[in-house]
Amino acid sequence: MEITPQKLASSIDHTILRADTDYACVDRFISEADRYRFASVCVNPWHVARAVAKLKGTGVDVSTVIGFPLGANTSEVKVYEAVNAFESGAARIGMVINSGAVKSNDFDTVFEDIKMVRSGIPDAILEVIIETALLSENEIIISSKICMEAGVDLICSSTGFSTLETKLSDVALIRRIVGLKKGVKASGNFRNLDSALKLFEAGADRLGCSGVVIVDEISGVR
Amino acid sequence: MEITPQKLASSIDHTILRADTDYACVDRFISEADRYRFASVCVNPWHVARAVAKLKGTGVDVSTVIGFPLGANTSEVKVYEAVNAFESGAARIGMVINSGAVKSNDFDTVFEDIKMVRSGIPDAILEVIIETALLSENEIIISSKICMEAGVDLICSSTGFSTLETKLSDVALIRRIVGLKKGVKASGNFRNLDSALKLFEAGADRLGCSGVVIVDEISGVR
Repeated sequence: MEITPQKLASSIDHTILRADTDYACVDRFISEADRYRFASVCVNPWHVARAVAKLKGTGVDVSTVIGFPLGANTSEVKVYEAVNAFESGAARIGMVINSGAVKSNDFDTVFEDIKMVRSGIPDAILEVIIETALLSENEIIISSKICMEAGVDLICSSTGFSTLETKLSDVALIRRIVGLKKGVKASGNFRNLDSALKLFEAGADRLGCSGVVIVDEISGVR
Repeated sequence: MEITPQKLASSIDHTILRADTDYACVDRFISEADRYRFASVCVNPWHVARAVAKLKGTGVDVSTVIGFPLGANTSEVKVYEAVNAFESGAARIGMVINSGAVKSNDFDTVFEDIKMVRSGIPDAILEVIIETALLSENEIIISSKICMEAGVDLICSSTGFSTLETKLSDVALIRRIVGLKKGVKASGNFRNLDSALKLFEAGADRLGCSGVVIVDEISGVR
């Protein structure tokens, strides 16, 4: 697989979601997203309007997260938050699946939760974050199928806030289920080129992470 | 300090907020809250309606959390989620402070965020969760003062989802600021009587935790 720095950057949502992210920190991520030509900067909802204003005209999208990171909100709240973010200019919306409903085998609730958000923001790119670290193989398979049925655009492997890193085998499993019909995003706290390339090989076509170090590494800057 | 099992139980919000909490698990916490006469069961928003239905007539309240655990949502979404939970029957609402705004010294935003939720649910007991593990001593002092000004009922020390446990010195600091005017709740993953008693001594008058082991210990059951 041949990969250039720009191709790599255009596959990364440059992500900063820590609770204590202040204006200085989010501004750094926003300007890095522009400078490195990342696909988007991914910020918490209260930073969306700021990021949209600063990235206007650059072609770099703003992503955000909904019901994050537990996914344990009511569906009404997830819809409201998604619409609120989309109306503020977020082009890409990552909602967290209801893991408790998955664990309860209440798949109707899992589906309806996603479907309601999908219907609320038909024009956004909708990603569903399934918390693979909490799920069995079978639960990952069912969750991926539900996401496809509900019309999401891509499936993401992790919030980065759970107990474990994204496993390559989980990324490969999601890819096996969705085939080429949907995007697969790997996210978490990986911070080097080697991890990134392995995730692409496993089946990811997009990464959610802090991307500067990774792109600098492929560019030979570090 | 003399403390009976019932007095202890009535100071505890019996809490289960893990993302993967299924119906079986939440039902166990709900029935324990009734059996042990905890002040409330504290569950994620999507479990509120279930807990309210099951605890009807028992005198045990249902608590929930808003913008949890990052507090990085827009204020509009926090208000909507709080109203949604209150209308579903949650009597006690714990919202997470905007830690990023605290870190940015943007105290107007911190205040307005809390004030908007307070105005949205005037009849609920409103607790603000400040993530002490992320804050300096000065930031804890300012946050506590803002909470008082915004008319909250109590201040809680931690989401239990951050990097560190609640420190006794942080609980004491919050108590020093709010005096006897507001409640102080200590929360986190402490699970024994000794920790609970130390938190009370430091200034807490309420605990948010999984309470069964603690009450069993004072009752001599374990």
